[in-house]
Amino acid sequence: MIIIVKHGANEERIQDLIHWIESQNLITHVSKGEFTTIVGVIGDTSKLDEDLIMGLDIVDSVKRVSEPFKSANRKFHPLDSIIDVSGVKVGGGNFAMIAGPCSVESHDQIISIAQDVKAAGANMLRGGAFKPRTSPYDFQGLKADGLELLLEAKKITGLPIVTEIMNANHLPLFENVDLIQVGARNMQNFELLKELGHTKKPILLKRGLANTIKELLMAAEYIMSGGNENIILCERGIRTFETATRNTLDLSAIPVLHELTHLPVVIDPSHATGVARYVKPMAVAAAAAGCDGLIIEVHNDPPHALCDGAQSLRPEQYEDVAKSVNKVRAALAE
Amino acid sequence: MIIIVKHGANEERIQDLIHWIESQNLITHVSKGEFTTIVGVIGDTSKLDEDLIMGLDIVDSVKRVSEPFKSANRKFHPLDSIIDVSGVKVGGGNFAMIAGPCSVESHDQIISIAQDVKAAGANMLRGGAFKPRTSPYDFQGLKADGLELLLEAKKITGLPIVTEIMNANHLPLFENVDLIQVGARNMQNFELLKELGHTKKPILLKRGLANTIKELLMAAEYIMSGGNENIILCERGIRTFETATRNTLDLSAIPVLHELTHLPVVIDPSHATGVARYVKPMAVAAAAAGCDGLIIEVHNDPPHALCDGAQSLRPEQYEDVAKSVNKVRAALAE
Amino acid sequence: MIIIVKHGANEERIQDLIHWIESQNLITHVSKGEFTTIVGVIGDTSKLDEDLIMGLDIVDSVKRVSEPFKSANRKFHPLDSIIDVSGVKVGGGNFAMIAGPCSVESHDQIISIAQDVKAAGANMLRGGAFKPRTSPYDFQGLKADGLELLLEAKKITGLPIVTEIMNANHLPLFENVDLIQVGARNMQNFELLKELGHTKKPILLKRGLANTIKELLMAAEYIMSGGNENIILCERGIRTFETATRNTLDLSAIPVLHELTHLPVVIDPSHATGVARYVKPMAVAAAAAGCDGLIIEVHNDPPHALCDGAQSLRPEQYEDVAKSVNKVRAALAE
Amino acid sequence: MIIIVKHGANEERIQDLIHWIESQNLITHVSKGEFTTIVGVIGDTSKLDEDLIMGLDIVDSVKRVSEPFKSANRKFHPLDSIIDVSGVKVGGGNFAMIAGPCSVESHDQIISIAQDVKAAGANMLRGGAFKPRTSPYDFQGLKADGLELLLEAKKITGLPIVTEIMNANHLPLFENVDLIQVGARNMQNFELLKELGHTKKPILLKRGLANTIKELLMAAEYIMSGGNENIILCERGIRTFETATRNTLDLSAIPVLHELTHLPVVIDPSHATGVARYVKPMAVAAAAAGCDGLIIEVHNDPPHALCDGAQSLRPEQYEDVAKSVNKVRAALAE
Repeated sequence: MIIIVKHGANEERIQDLIHWIESQNLITHVSKGEFTTIVGVIGDTSKLDEDLIMGLDIVDSVKRVSEPFKSANRKFHPLDSIIDVSGVKVGGGNFAMIAGPCSVESHDQIISIAQDVKAAGANMLRGGAFKPRTSPYDFQGLKADGLELLLEAKKITGLPIVTEIMNANHLPLFENVDLIQVGARNMQNFELLKELGHTKKPILLKRGLANTIKELLMAAEYIMSGGNENIILCERGIRTFETATRNTLDLSAIPVLHELTHLPVVIDPSHATGVARYVKPMAVAAAAAGCDGLIIEVHNDPPHALCDGAQSLRPEQYEDVAKSVNKVRAALAE
Repeated sequence: MIIIVKHGANEERIQDLIHWIESQNLITHVSKGEFTTIVGVIGDTSKLDEDLIMGLDIVDSVKRVSEPFKSANRKFHPLDSIIDVSGVKVGGGNFAMIAGPCSVESHDQIISIAQDVKAAGANMLRGGAFKPRTSPYDFQGLKADGLELLLEAKKITGLPIVTEIMNANHLPLFENVDLIQVGARNMQNFELLKELGHTKKPILLKRGLANTIKELLMAAEYIMSGGNENIILCERGIRTFETATRNTLDLSAIPVLHELTHLPVVIDPSHATGVARYVKPMAVAAAAAGCDGLIIEVHNDPPHALCDGAQSLRPEQYEDVAKSVNKVRAALAE
Repeated sequence: MIIIVKHGANEERIQDLIHWIESQNLITHVSKGEFTTIVGVIGDTSKLDEDLIMGLDIVDSVKRVSEPFKSANRKFHPLDSIIDVSGVKVGGGNFAMIAGPCSVESHDQIISIAQDVKAAGANMLRGGAFKPRTSPYDFQGLKADGLELLLEAKKITGLPIVTEIMNANHLPLFENVDLIQVGARNMQNFELLKELGHTKKPILLKRGLANTIKELLMAAEYIMSGGNENIILCERGIRTFETATRNTLDLSAIPVLHELTHLPVVIDPSHATGVARYVKPMAVAAAAAGCDGLIIEVHNDPPHALCDGAQSLRPEQYEDVAKSVNKVRAALAE
Repeated sequence: MIIIVKHGANEERIQDLIHWIESQNLITHVSKGEFTTIVGVIGDTSKLDEDLIMGLDIVDSVKRVSEPFKSANRKFHPLDSIIDVSGVKVGGGNFAMIAGPCSVESHDQIISIAQDVKAAGANMLRGGAFKPRTSPYDFQGLKADGLELLLEAKKITGLPIVTEIMNANHLPLFENVDLIQVGARNMQNFELLKELGHTKKPILLKRGLANTIKELLMAAEYIMSGGNENIILCERGIRTFETATRNTLDLSAIPVLHELTHLPVVIDPSHATGVARYVKPMAVAAAAAGCDGLIIEVHNDPPHALCDGAQSLRPEQYEDVAKSVNKVRAALAE
């Protein structure tokens, strides 16, 4: 960490700062220039509170040289993490093809879609049971009944299931869920993250609409600092001024995340674009950019889906996407 | 609601849509033009799922004529709501002056600040006990002990207390809290909002960093639809590309919210700017723009605050802000 | 165009509006509902000023059913436009590989890079002669001398040259430039666009950092309305809150633009990411998403480039990118 | 400037960098830590190209301690600049009240509005003659005829006139214009800025929709480095995800700019909000935040304005705004 001290700061106050830092088992190097004094801090600064130091009136600015995340940091874990989701591996060259409807609606719907997406190439089944909706008047999901239906679909198809948790109190219901999703709106629901850190469940952690890549890694760190290192990150579009797509899919996050962390990165082109006909080009692009998997909405009857029908593919469209994704991955692996 | 049907859409599918809408006790008016067919929907459309209709492949776009929020809507409640926080009224000309430290740190700290801000003109005391922090390694608040200290400060000064809740399971601890804050990161934690809707507690609902004004109102609607109409809205800066301030304070939200809703609107210039010396101009500007209150961080020793010291005012600076705010409000009331 | 009239608007004023619209050779369809009156406008509404109608106090909102751009609109020109840049075709399946340094620095530099990128697979040479720089104190380009050097590189390699214009007064100097670039900062320099509309030169029009896809098409329309339809659009990153990359590359713009317009779409991953090691994944992703070309910065000595060295590839890295792009395009064409 | 060198960088390369910096008459201080080497650069670094240094592969990051703008920098010019616009002073306690229509439409219109706004308290007249419009099919202004009409209004009322320039070639036409506006879309039209730097005309420089405060100051620096220091800055809303207002008015820019620069800061609440009924609260808020003037659209017949009628006030509304602004300024001056 580098602390740039304000021009003309009181010397005694600078010494106070240096003593305080050193009292935390860190080493300082002071460099006095004509216009500025710089204090370099060496050691494990991840537990130093950057805001606290910024609060000192003698400090002009603070810059971290090392990142504030440790468990998720590739520097300390150079090899790709491979997350095992009930036998399906993700990361380190293993590709997740997660597909299914936005919401579980009925027994026939979820079984039928599960069989279709499996035939089309999916290796995990997604489906919402507890649904976060902007309006309290919109369909909120089948809840516990939806989880039951997902488990039935799993029994029939063998596909591990992925579904979203919105409340740590529901954890007992998620005992047989294979991959628990934390949605974009809950990425900084720190209480939920901490609880998930005390489980051993694989977690699919979605980036918030207005969260930076570093904040996504700090959210992963919340879970990992509790002991659970089974995390898959997911980029699903960020909020910008552009309105032609629902959100702006930030595919640059793939190489940036691969550089900063060892955790696998999955892309959700369905929520990012919000438009079914843009899902294929973005899915193929994401695969080309090196992502570790895709999560795509598939519905047997998109126009009658109870939510997000506008962005759902039909099973035959999903099969087409899966084929193109495989072609691109094969071409780049040559 | 106005539904614009795609050029060349199948007539039978259009009729299906019309029948489905009418089956929900809504009335339709169809207008066929040369290039487009428009279906106007009359009645209470707040329970119609806009995304669902957008999902139909015959639909080009959907536009709401009436807003999807009802309880918070000024159209159905033209007079300003006045929220009573343990005797301190907010809204309808009543101004909230909420002040205190980011975090409760110790008995002496919170008592001393409470007395200082009361003397300077505050009518409520804020202080964080449960702290949402981006890093799991940063100070997370004194938790239940912090609540105890706040209650002690209330006993001594008589100021109602305001503090943030992060987990609905903590509600029993908040029994004697006068105004419960929902932080920006939890604005769309719908599970928490629903629980708060089942209480009668006044709620200070902060706008999320990337949430629109309409989404803020939909979040209020979550609480109100549960029966709790005691809500104070709070703008605290949104995330933009500008980095000179921590966030960009959106003061236009004041007249926009006053037009759309009857709920009071409080401004937080401390978190929005993140810089103590910008708090006064923004506080005075917010008062001039017609807000119903201000929530400002005050600390007796900002450089040693355990969090957010960079944006905290000293008590004497807060007194200066309060005086200027009063001058501006008096001048505009003439 | 659909005009939604305010509830309770004066009937006489509504009739005034209808007469005024009809006086412009447009047809109206009026639909009166219980809560709202809707005026549908049929005909060529591209010349109707949306803001003007929004300004009427009886109007609640205005929604275009047809887009305000005509010449660039795929509806009126369903086939892909193929732009001929001195023999190199772009669009309709023809792929532009534009490469070269940010700035032309010297005779040896530009000749050497031109030969290298040609060998690596480029079919056009880029190089800045007039440079838009944020600071007046930064290197501003070799100007007319830079153009001379580019022309010399063209003579030697046969590669058509691409370079940026910043001032319509410089047009005579650009007589032998094959593809004239309008930079992001000048996308809404309407005076420059109009002048370019009076030439027959192919134009590479870059999207502004804060401009929507629709505004990019309106900027193209400025040039096309003057008679010059030789336009290639370029996405080069938009400005968001994320700071891990210089800008956020909006690859969804590729399918959106291909749907709305017949003009080819080229991607600039170098300026978008600002980081050389992210250029390859983003270039390959863009090709997978279906773009019509790539413009990439290549420098023989990136660390000593006079500008934007951080994002420049060495020629051998560019060759590697070109190979991967070709693999992906071949795989998807199967 | 502080250069953070990458961990493990080649020592010889670091020495090369240091020699290169010192060859530019700058002094370096090197601080070697366990994990990092820091090179502090002392002297006038405003001419050092930050991007160039970032391009070196041995460099991790670069941080400026001093700002890259000099002429506009308050550090070197602590007193407020007072700009004299044909006798009307702006800055240093002098307040500009600029009002008038978006576009000059006719002789009667501009004379009538000029007289009205003068009576209501304006001390300058604005009016667009050359209009930047998103669509080539929208009204583009009366051009030279519009300038003539403005000059006539000036003769009659004595109000200095403010109007936008879009093309440096038009400068001869602007000889009698008192304050030349550079619009938001041209803020980084560096060729235009350079030309204006060679005049002595007062310039009203508007912030671009996606430009940071620092970029606004660098744009001012372009003009000032040419010798023209008569610059008034103008904040007029930035582009964000929020759609309730046309743009988001960034009032925090007022204290930030007052801290960084000596140039006066004027606010345009009309273009920022795009809605007439939000202009008053934002104008009063801006005055309370300490701005040096307001530029507000006023039209005698807003519903029939040829552009931007939605945001124009009627003269009697403007008078009401002016009175409230004066009350707030008087209250804060006590």
